Amino acid sequence: MGLFSKDIKTMDDLFVYQLQDIYYAEKRIVGALPDMVAKASSPQLKSAFESHLGETRNHVQRLERVFQMHGTKPESVTCPAIDGIIDEADDVAGEVADKTVLDAALIAAAQAVEHYEMTRYGSLIAWAKALGRNDCAQVLQETLAEEKAADNKLTAISEGGVKRAAA
Amino acid sequence: MGLFSKDIKTMDDLFVYQLQDIYYAEKRIVGALPDMVAKASSPQLKSAFESHLGETRNHVQRLERVFQMHGTKPESVTCPAIDGIIDEADDVAGEVADKTVLDAALIAAAQAVEHYEMTRYGSLIAWAKALGRNDCAQVLQETLAEEKAADNKLTAISEGGVKRAAA
Repeated sequence: MGLFSKDIKTMDDLFVYQLQDIYYAEKRIVGALPDMVAKASSPQLKSAFESHLGETRNHVQRLERVFQMHGTKPESVTCPAIDGIIDEADDVAGEVADKTVLDAALIAAAQAVEHYEMTRYGSLIAWAKALGRNDCAQVLQETLAEEKAADNKLTAISEGGVKRAAA
Repeated sequence: MGLFSKDIKTMDDLFVYQLQDIYYAEKRIVGALPDMVAKASSPQLKSAFESHLGETRNHVQRLERVFQMHGTKPESVTCPAIDGIIDEADDVAGEVADKTVLDAALIAAAQAVEHYEMTRYGSLIAWAKALGRNDCAQVLQETLAEEKAADNKLTAISEGGVKRAAA
């Protein structure tokens, strides 16, 4: 993006910009999840992070498909939001020694990531539909459904674990 | 937080840390909303941001009440996540000239903020309940309900506006 230009001129430009933002975010999450798998203690949480890593690799490919459908080369723009969310997750995890408290902190961090993705995919789907690209909206919808399911799974794991940690 | 210490030892410590994080975030949002009011073109969006500014000031006071109920002094810890989300909103808004496209970008940015808050309040409420502090959970729940309502209102405004911008 140029420093003094206004590079986003149309809704289509905004759609592509947001695709580039979430493409960067998904790739950062692929990089961050193995560390979360390593830090998690509960086998259930480890397995949830592992299976979400597989899904996230698939989200990256799905985004590449949407770029292709749109006729645009897959590119990333730096996404300060996901950088901040992941930096904060690292900061907090570094402050916790107790394993069950760390699991609670990791779940909260992962849910912050899920919510960021949910809001971005929500906007992208609305914009794709408004632009008459229901085909792109449908592919993005598959990922949104998986992000929501991952968030719900984390809530269920947390309900058991947090009670034990607080006891 | 000490560089080599592990300052979060219990679920109660994690609860207080997260309160300090969202306290910082709410105050940053109070600082950011007037700029979003100024940038918005649609009167409906301007008014939604203005009314959410009033609510957000109230969320800050509610957090101060929860700190007090908990017997802790209200303090902030820097929250890189909200800093990243707001920096990104500023970056994108700076790239858009067209008024209706800018409104769509502002709505998406505000929804990213709402989702961040929703996930943090969701964790705080779960942790408060696990810690036997249903009184704190109840106060936090009032804010969560307002964040969800603000997010839904933005979706409704977006549905009209984006279609016009994409046309």
